[in-house]
Amino acid sequence: MDSDTTARLLITCPDRPGIVAAVSGFFYSHGSNITALDQHSTDPLGGDFFMRLEFQTPYLDLSKPALEKAFEEVVASRFHMNWRISYASQIKRVAILVSKYDHALMELLWRWKQGQLRCEIGMVISNHPDLQEAVESFGIPYHHVAVRAESKEEDERRILELLEGKADLIVLARYMQILTPQFIARYPNVIINIHHSFLPAFAGADPYRQAYERGVKLIGATAHYVTEELDAGPIIEQDVARVSHRHSVHDLKEIGRDLERKVLARAVQWHLEDRTIIYGNKTIVFAP
Amino acid sequence: MDSDTTARLLITCPDRPGIVAAVSGFFYSHGSNITALDQHSTDPLGGDFFMRLEFQTPYLDLSKPALEKAFEEVVASRFHMNWRISYASQIKRVAILVSKYDHALMELLWRWKQGQLRCEIGMVISNHPDLQEAVESFGIPYHHVAVRAESKEEDERRILELLEGKADLIVLARYMQILTPQFIARYPNVIINIHHSFLPAFAGADPYRQAYERGVKLIGATAHYVTEELDAGPIIEQDVARVSHRHSVHDLKEIGRDLERKVLARAVQWHLEDRTIIYGNKTIVFAP
Amino acid sequence: MDSDTTARLLITCPDRPGIVAAVSGFFYSHGSNITALDQHSTDPLGGDFFMRLEFQTPYLDLSKPALEKAFEEVVASRFHMNWRISYASQIKRVAILVSKYDHALMELLWRWKQGQLRCEIGMVISNHPDLQEAVESFGIPYHHVAVRAESKEEDERRILELLEGKADLIVLARYMQILTPQFIARYPNVIINIHHSFLPAFAGADPYRQAYERGVKLIGATAHYVTEELDAGPIIEQDVARVSHRHSVHDLKEIGRDLERKVLARAVQWHLEDRTIIYGNKTIVFAP
Amino acid sequence: MDSDTTARLLITCPDRPGIVAAVSGFFYSHGSNITALDQHSTDPLGGDFFMRLEFQTPYLDLSKPALEKAFEEVVASRFHMNWRISYASQIKRVAILVSKYDHALMELLWRWKQGQLRCEIGMVISNHPDLQEAVESFGIPYHHVAVRAESKEEDERRILELLEGKADLIVLARYMQILTPQFIARYPNVIINIHHSFLPAFAGADPYRQAYERGVKLIGATAHYVTEELDAGPIIEQDVARVSHRHSVHDLKEIGRDLERKVLARAVQWHLEDRTIIYGNKTIVFAP
Repeated sequence: MDSDTTARLLITCPDRPGIVAAVSGFFYSHGSNITALDQHSTDPLGGDFFMRLEFQTPYLDLSKPALEKAFEEVVASRFHMNWRISYASQIKRVAILVSKYDHALMELLWRWKQGQLRCEIGMVISNHPDLQEAVESFGIPYHHVAVRAESKEEDERRILELLEGKADLIVLARYMQILTPQFIARYPNVIINIHHSFLPAFAGADPYRQAYERGVKLIGATAHYVTEELDAGPIIEQDVARVSHRHSVHDLKEIGRDLERKVLARAVQWHLEDRTIIYGNKTIVFAP
Repeated sequence: MDSDTTARLLITCPDRPGIVAAVSGFFYSHGSNITALDQHSTDPLGGDFFMRLEFQTPYLDLSKPALEKAFEEVVASRFHMNWRISYASQIKRVAILVSKYDHALMELLWRWKQGQLRCEIGMVISNHPDLQEAVESFGIPYHHVAVRAESKEEDERRILELLEGKADLIVLARYMQILTPQFIARYPNVIINIHHSFLPAFAGADPYRQAYERGVKLIGATAHYVTEELDAGPIIEQDVARVSHRHSVHDLKEIGRDLERKVLARAVQWHLEDRTIIYGNKTIVFAP
Repeated sequence: MDSDTTARLLITCPDRPGIVAAVSGFFYSHGSNITALDQHSTDPLGGDFFMRLEFQTPYLDLSKPALEKAFEEVVASRFHMNWRISYASQIKRVAILVSKYDHALMELLWRWKQGQLRCEIGMVISNHPDLQEAVESFGIPYHHVAVRAESKEEDERRILELLEGKADLIVLARYMQILTPQFIARYPNVIINIHHSFLPAFAGADPYRQAYERGVKLIGATAHYVTEELDAGPIIEQDVARVSHRHSVHDLKEIGRDLERKVLARAVQWHLEDRTIIYGNKTIVFAP
Repeated sequence: MDSDTTARLLITCPDRPGIVAAVSGFFYSHGSNITALDQHSTDPLGGDFFMRLEFQTPYLDLSKPALEKAFEEVVASRFHMNWRISYASQIKRVAILVSKYDHALMELLWRWKQGQLRCEIGMVISNHPDLQEAVESFGIPYHHVAVRAESKEEDERRILELLEGKADLIVLARYMQILTPQFIARYPNVIINIHHSFLPAFAGADPYRQAYERGVKLIGATAHYVTEELDAGPIIEQDVARVSHRHSVHDLKEIGRDLERKVLARAVQWHLEDRTIIYGNKTIVFAP
């Protein structure tokens, strides 16, 4: 499937005739085979167009920088494209923020170790010391940075220093602190959070209790990109599980843990494979 | 399964030791076999207790009225029970209210004709004339009662007159009018509505558009008992279907239709089989 | 979405570089906008390639026959393509064969009446007279052709005569007769059957009883293209529902009915929208 | 929920009137509160009856042995019951057999560490040395016992010696050796296997490849009790995930891993909580 010779192109532009022909013609003429192609249009007449293209690099007749330059000049500028190319050989660097619950974190580490998540997990940062041993047993550095109400900005600054230049993606794997707008602005569109409800239901604190009190018959989990507004960013993935009157808040948490693990792992994998494009407050996901 | 000799007892009472022994001993001593028994306790110490019991009537040593009287005196009063017995031979009478969309209505009529919904559908009432022929082809009376803003109370009174003494259950099968508190008070705990979202997300108008605009990855439908507060009554059943960025609002409506049909049909069936107990703002469902 | 100006191209060919560029360039150069594109390759090196392309016909610079001729000469022959173009304006004609159970049939007729299945249902043929009134109420001709063991070939010949020149797709909506190889050979790759199990489990007769006796925890339904070997043709769609020890064979049938309705309706819709390509004993489904 | 004072009674007997009254009356009269009760009857007339009862032990007026003796004499013998009582305070001892794949094993260890699986995991036995470090990091002994075709009986004897007197439940967490009938006979009804298909489809070797070649649209996993006939024992739990033509055998394995983890974990938990009763070739599961 995914090998070191794979590259991925993501495009957003106004829809109009000729885009596919121009893009595919460009890559063909430069010796590159297209191995996957997904596209979406909100409306062929005056809407927006999105494309994800996987191509192979071994027989390119140009260097990568020259290819990108040529693509901009020959294709992208003509169609007013917002685009970027990622190379599978440039492994993305991930930092995970976590508090005390380990289930979402462990699921990511386990899948990473299995080779299912193609990335480098450069560090885990936590506002608690509890998970240090578990993380270090995977050979991953663990940084404990206490975050206190009275020194929140300063504490966050320490986290930003740890991350500086070292993270292409930040995953909040049940990190129970609200990030400041400054932090979020520093990492636009590359912070993924797992919220333990079926958003937009039960945003905010203690969603399993909220679900219990409302008497819903399904509980959910939602992975989304983090924006300034709490639990309101573009949704990447959601899933639900059936519950009944027999389940206590404690049971909902236990059932929900499995949802959170699964939903967050999928969202992170799709981001790492460049399958997501943020479009306004939504996420286009070219799922496999 | 369910035959004319089946009866069902529903109980709510404070939990304390001895309830099961007292209830099952009572029915055994009067010649009745228990063929199904479900129970639930919110907390064995000081919580509330719920029970659904199916028993068979052929070899009862008492008449039904005498049995009910004896049960009250010997068992129910001792445990401060809120209880009722339903006899499968006393077919429940259902009235369906609908506007223009026929999918939820047709699903109910089709299942009823198949014998899956054991009830008498006494009438369909609509604020539009459109579905008259379809309904009458099932041999069911159709009443068109226009509901206008300027005469809403009077129009609703006409509906109440049609229902008077003829409905044990009222089903809102995509009835696009909001019932007045007076109407709801007249039929407490026996009006079931299908809402076309995963409540509490997207209450109110046009939930598929709301879902589209929020960019959720699953859409849902919710069947609930109607209370004064809009879309906030006890939830009986919910289900979801997966959607993606490819789906327009029109697509969501089409996918959602199948959810609405399924979810409403289940909720109605469970009500008809006396599987539901309303408890505060929740519904206990002893599902089969 | 789908309008009278939509056309769909389905392609199967050996994979090699340049296919997407050639196809998309061809349509662009002839004034046609591509509004959807799906592709699949079993292996970019020496595998097989499949493509579904939706394009719009209003601004074509060629007539449809001329376009097809040019496509063959300029593109298809070069890549050794097996291909066909369907025009949404050429409504497919469907014939439904059914026995006594009406649920799968009614679901199709109901969706067709809703406008969800874009086709002409030209006739329903049954080996029983039971469903005549129900079918004719939709304005669809109903033919009762008794099929008896002693005259099976002759009876089938009558069915073939009714179908002759009038069916682009034949749907077996719980038709309880096994078709002869001659019949199947007459309609290759355009007969869809619904089997009431999760194939390949429980092929053959009475699958719900087989499922009950094996004690499975999920039951299923499978829609597949009909080939000579019973219940072994290319699978289009499957789905399952959860069951338990509480469910009798009768219950499984009732639960399974809903599965059969849903699974068959999806498969028929995908076929009508030219979303399926048969590949050996599998079906490639470019689902929406 | 489950505390040290909880006990569980499992009953199988011919159905006849009076069972619930006798059982519940017995426990009430001895000072024990019933906190959960599930029952099932294959047929109230001449069928078999099953019951699971959770009761609390703190206020029993008899010792546990005396209670069991009294239950046999007063209730069980009268109804010809096959029964047993388990006490939550008597933690079950589990041994896990595994080969090289670690996903099912790790899921069990992780849940056990979380406190979700109430048991003692006394040992992991493997025919490969690979997972030693991972297992020992949980503080659990790891025994490597090579199993070779030429000395299979002797190798199995070594495993039996390790298990002797130390395992109430044996879990095959992707153990790729077929157990001999002698081994199975030594541990009747307490060996749980996870099979990586939706049984009875794709029994035997390499089920993901079988599924790929048949072109199914859902893949599954099945947890079952092990009997002499391969992959044919009583099914405890099954689940499925959707796949498409895009998925290679490798993809199916990756998707299937998540199913296997989930399905095996549920089955083990239900066994540990005494929620399963084997009945012929089926498993009655009183799920929470």
